[in-house]
Amino acid sequence: MAKVDHNEHLDVPLTDRRQTTVPEVPAFAEHGPLVDHKVPQADVVQQEPDLAWSRIRHTLREPLSEFFGVFILIMFGDGVVAQVVLSNGEKGDYQSISWGWGLGVMLGVYSSGISGAHLNPAVTLANCIYRKFPWRKFPIYMLAQLLGAMAAAAVVYGNYKSAIDVFEGGPGIRTVGGATSTAGIFCTYPAEFMTKTGQFFSEFIASTLLMFLIYALKDDGNIGAGPLTPLGLFFIIFGIGACFGWETGYAINLARDFGPRLVSYMIGYGHEVWSAGGYYFWVPMVAPFCGCAFGGWLYDMFLFTGESPINTPYLGLQRFFQPKRSVWSNTYSDSQV
Amino acid sequence: MAKVDHNEHLDVPLTDRRQTTVPEVPAFAEHGPLVDHKVPQADVVQQEPDLAWSRIRHTLREPLSEFFGVFILIMFGDGVVAQVVLSNGEKGDYQSISWGWGLGVMLGVYSSGISGAHLNPAVTLANCIYRKFPWRKFPIYMLAQLLGAMAAAAVVYGNYKSAIDVFEGGPGIRTVGGATSTAGIFCTYPAEFMTKTGQFFSEFIASTLLMFLIYALKDDGNIGAGPLTPLGLFFIIFGIGACFGWETGYAINLARDFGPRLVSYMIGYGHEVWSAGGYYFWVPMVAPFCGCAFGGWLYDMFLFTGESPINTPYLGLQRFFQPKRSVWSNTYSDSQV
Amino acid sequence: MAKVDHNEHLDVPLTDRRQTTVPEVPAFAEHGPLVDHKVPQADVVQQEPDLAWSRIRHTLREPLSEFFGVFILIMFGDGVVAQVVLSNGEKGDYQSISWGWGLGVMLGVYSSGISGAHLNPAVTLANCIYRKFPWRKFPIYMLAQLLGAMAAAAVVYGNYKSAIDVFEGGPGIRTVGGATSTAGIFCTYPAEFMTKTGQFFSEFIASTLLMFLIYALKDDGNIGAGPLTPLGLFFIIFGIGACFGWETGYAINLARDFGPRLVSYMIGYGHEVWSAGGYYFWVPMVAPFCGCAFGGWLYDMFLFTGESPINTPYLGLQRFFQPKRSVWSNTYSDSQV
Amino acid sequence: MAKVDHNEHLDVPLTDRRQTTVPEVPAFAEHGPLVDHKVPQADVVQQEPDLAWSRIRHTLREPLSEFFGVFILIMFGDGVVAQVVLSNGEKGDYQSISWGWGLGVMLGVYSSGISGAHLNPAVTLANCIYRKFPWRKFPIYMLAQLLGAMAAAAVVYGNYKSAIDVFEGGPGIRTVGGATSTAGIFCTYPAEFMTKTGQFFSEFIASTLLMFLIYALKDDGNIGAGPLTPLGLFFIIFGIGACFGWETGYAINLARDFGPRLVSYMIGYGHEVWSAGGYYFWVPMVAPFCGCAFGGWLYDMFLFTGESPINTPYLGLQRFFQPKRSVWSNTYSDSQV
Repeated sequence: MAKVDHNEHLDVPLTDRRQTTVPEVPAFAEHGPLVDHKVPQADVVQQEPDLAWSRIRHTLREPLSEFFGVFILIMFGDGVVAQVVLSNGEKGDYQSISWGWGLGVMLGVYSSGISGAHLNPAVTLANCIYRKFPWRKFPIYMLAQLLGAMAAAAVVYGNYKSAIDVFEGGPGIRTVGGATSTAGIFCTYPAEFMTKTGQFFSEFIASTLLMFLIYALKDDGNIGAGPLTPLGLFFIIFGIGACFGWETGYAINLARDFGPRLVSYMIGYGHEVWSAGGYYFWVPMVAPFCGCAFGGWLYDMFLFTGESPINTPYLGLQRFFQPKRSVWSNTYSDSQV
Repeated sequence: MAKVDHNEHLDVPLTDRRQTTVPEVPAFAEHGPLVDHKVPQADVVQQEPDLAWSRIRHTLREPLSEFFGVFILIMFGDGVVAQVVLSNGEKGDYQSISWGWGLGVMLGVYSSGISGAHLNPAVTLANCIYRKFPWRKFPIYMLAQLLGAMAAAAVVYGNYKSAIDVFEGGPGIRTVGGATSTAGIFCTYPAEFMTKTGQFFSEFIASTLLMFLIYALKDDGNIGAGPLTPLGLFFIIFGIGACFGWETGYAINLARDFGPRLVSYMIGYGHEVWSAGGYYFWVPMVAPFCGCAFGGWLYDMFLFTGESPINTPYLGLQRFFQPKRSVWSNTYSDSQV
Repeated sequence: MAKVDHNEHLDVPLTDRRQTTVPEVPAFAEHGPLVDHKVPQADVVQQEPDLAWSRIRHTLREPLSEFFGVFILIMFGDGVVAQVVLSNGEKGDYQSISWGWGLGVMLGVYSSGISGAHLNPAVTLANCIYRKFPWRKFPIYMLAQLLGAMAAAAVVYGNYKSAIDVFEGGPGIRTVGGATSTAGIFCTYPAEFMTKTGQFFSEFIASTLLMFLIYALKDDGNIGAGPLTPLGLFFIIFGIGACFGWETGYAINLARDFGPRLVSYMIGYGHEVWSAGGYYFWVPMVAPFCGCAFGGWLYDMFLFTGESPINTPYLGLQRFFQPKRSVWSNTYSDSQV
Repeated sequence: MAKVDHNEHLDVPLTDRRQTTVPEVPAFAEHGPLVDHKVPQADVVQQEPDLAWSRIRHTLREPLSEFFGVFILIMFGDGVVAQVVLSNGEKGDYQSISWGWGLGVMLGVYSSGISGAHLNPAVTLANCIYRKFPWRKFPIYMLAQLLGAMAAAAVVYGNYKSAIDVFEGGPGIRTVGGATSTAGIFCTYPAEFMTKTGQFFSEFIASTLLMFLIYALKDDGNIGAGPLTPLGLFFIIFGIGACFGWETGYAINLARDFGPRLVSYMIGYGHEVWSAGGYYFWVPMVAPFCGCAFGGWLYDMFLFTGESPINTPYLGLQRFFQPKRSVWSNTYSDSQV
């Protein structure tokens, strides 16, 4: 496996060059710490590392990966809602929506292994807190996730434009709320009877379940889903939709909700996309972060035996008061989720 | 693997310390006797075994694991019934309920591998009888399972409180039976035409199938589901719901039924939670034990070739008349399910 | 591994004794020729081979395994039809029936690996023809499958007896055909517009697909489903039900149809169980054998590269004209499916 | 493994002879480059390579494999549409159709591993462009796929002939469009409100998703689905049906649409099979090629790190201007998808 590195004159910090074997791809048979989401980024090998595009792409590999992961997620997720709503339930029902979001996450995860397949800023946050994911990457990840969601929402809109026109009653009519409203295709609006507290609580619980179960699936000290993790995520999302999806539409993800909401605002659904449900829009932006942070805490506090700040003295809180390169940097070699 | 144990001054009976590799986590590729439910408890390694919380948690690791396993199960299970009932079937149908309970068990199993993922006192009982699970642990497991179910039922109630108010016709109205009753969210009530014998028989059969099939999935002398076991449990529970779920609601689990029933009584559903269906409440407390014991017997009697009291002289009954430490203790080293 | 065989005074032809390790259980990671259905019978090891019951059970291990496999299959299959029919579609719909039969087969396979999990006399026949399964075992397998189906049908009847009484309009009323008929719970009746040729053709096609796809899943020269085979069977049966299940009810199995039909006759559904549909009852007894034989031929003729009579000179037909011990005996050591 | 090749007098270019072990079947535990679709053709070993039929079959092994793969796909796909349409939704609903096509692809893939399980000329095209699949094989694959689809459509017609007669109102009546039309069983017709651009766009998007996700599942530098690939394809097809299946019926496959359309024309549905939807028939013939080419480009451009023309200088376009044997020939040894 020893290779002559004839690129030593290059100063680009590419770890591996001209290597034709992928050395640490998680094998099917092992429960290593990287099995789930994370193909270690330093080991993503490219065929032609000297090309300019290869270098650009290598630098941007994680945002690109999150972008496409969320893109796939929203394509299927918003797509299934569009089909069910616009066909008046003839081409799908509520259960189809559970299917669509569940498999959207599953296929999005398969698309974005290079970046760890977070697909959700709240999951990225929890990984920063509990799994040593570098804080510096948090804004990049969130931006890439948001852009991916916006791009997908735009494509779904383009695909269903004429059907929306028919459903709304004419070209250019775009309404939020009411029998012929189509705003719910893009982002979530709460059921009418919900109080603000209830809205927040519902999103909080769903996000807690999400993060708790992701950590359960990824924990090799537990059973661990290993290569079945994407399938496990299908069941988690399906389950949250079937069991806690009615009241607020289970956004549980800032990128999934705010991105398409912004697109629907740009398309012309008007100011109601923000004001509907008593200015509900901020709830799915804030609650998922709280919920995922709590869900991760719950798992680490009571079940996780691996390395976590919760398992260290003072719950690892001194980590925040003694910022070090190992905590904040994304080049520090120990930083692997 | 030899390590300097610098904790030898501690008298806490922690088996492994400061060990950073998990030595016997069931690998994906093997059909060992531990693949299914059971990550052997003595091998659950913690990062910081010297912390007080780590020690407490290590001591309580099995009840904690069962607690959260059943918590997840009931969150999804009661959650899906709540959503289907309260939305008048708009956000789900009977098949959604099969999905919800099936994936609740599946995800509960993924959450509670440390304790063997029984999630059901009747399964614990069968393991005590047929698989050398220590009898001393039975009450602890049952209590943890019951508390997990109660906690989840309370959270589901909190989440759907305003929807229940709307459905029942006003805040504080809580009824058992009738068109606007919501008691069925929490625990099971039998169909009206059922006799007491029929009720018992239905729960008995469903529990028999449950235990028989769990032992089939776990039997490596048979095909064995290996790492697909949690998925197999999804199909078992889905199937029992689809095929034997109508008449009595397939509780097949004391913790799942009695825990939320107690919570619904505390919430204010009144004495009818006990008296409904001709004081049906005791059936899902008793029948699952009988059914699981019979199902385990059936499998061991006719198909199991591994070590089981059924496969020993006198059907292993003398084990009960000659109680030994190996049978009743949970510290005896041979006791592994 | 060398062991002192202190049972050499016994004349029972037990291959392995007192062996505590299962030597050839199909590991998860390999695509050996035994991965699919067949745990080789000679390697099924028992803990206590000296017990009388262990010996009896060892002798009967294959019929017992088929019995319970088909028992599980019919429990879920007839159970789901009962629940959907008797609850007037409130507790399930046509798709539930596809689920029930699909997972019934899947869980039946997990229960009966010791015998190869045929669960269907037509599959046994195809294995005899194309996969060297000993012809001598054919009648034993068929009988065990039939008895398993009958036992399960009786249990389903017992479980749903009061619901049947309600549905039929009174205790003891049992009808075949008509709005309140419940005979369809147990066995299949064709749609009214079908001709006899159409009935046969429909069962023939479904059986052909079944066998062709089973051989595809089991063929390691193809992709091969390996440990996912039981899940693959779920999809096959679900698919046949969803795509070819309407016209004749996709019996595709003598044991599944004739066994419960016999039970329904014994229960008191009367002579119509035979005469309905123009004496349809013989079609699901004969067509599956033709279909499975054709499906196996199709796969072996065009795709299979392994050992098959089709791949030998004269299509292996001389095998039938030169009967040898290796063909007809079940003790000949080469005979392994 | 060294063997005496006693067939060296034969001039047939069979690579392996009389070899009884399959040397490179993708093992369950590895993520090799061949895990997904492709059992390397040179390693498909036959038991009796000297027989005439074995030689013919070996020569035709790839077309035969594609033929049967598409045959299985269309049997389930057209079959489920037939059952749902002809039973007026009593024996299935829109979701059943998603199931039928999804599992049709899954089981078709299991049937056709020898040829790489393309099942779709557009997938073959993308593999030619991006994965070094020999261009010479493209027409053979497409023809085999088309014939497989036609054969299956004819069998489905035969099976449902009497039901079609009943549904259309009499024997021999065959209509396209209208309440009692049955032409939609065989091929896709667009929703009425769609413009030609919208039709093309919808098919283009669905095909893009298909190819992008196939390459994601197959990419071992990503997570990679490994042996779960056929199951992953089930979810992809199910998802496209549930999320983008309404407007044009998600043909996304020339063979799937044009083959059965031709059969329906031959059966007697008349000229409307071509003229319906504003001569829609050419859209599902052209758009999938564009979409799959774009989807493959998208994946390789932004995520794929393995060997692809996109990853080489000038995007590999000089490959087309310097045709070499390695590019166009199917005997060149490097050519492996």
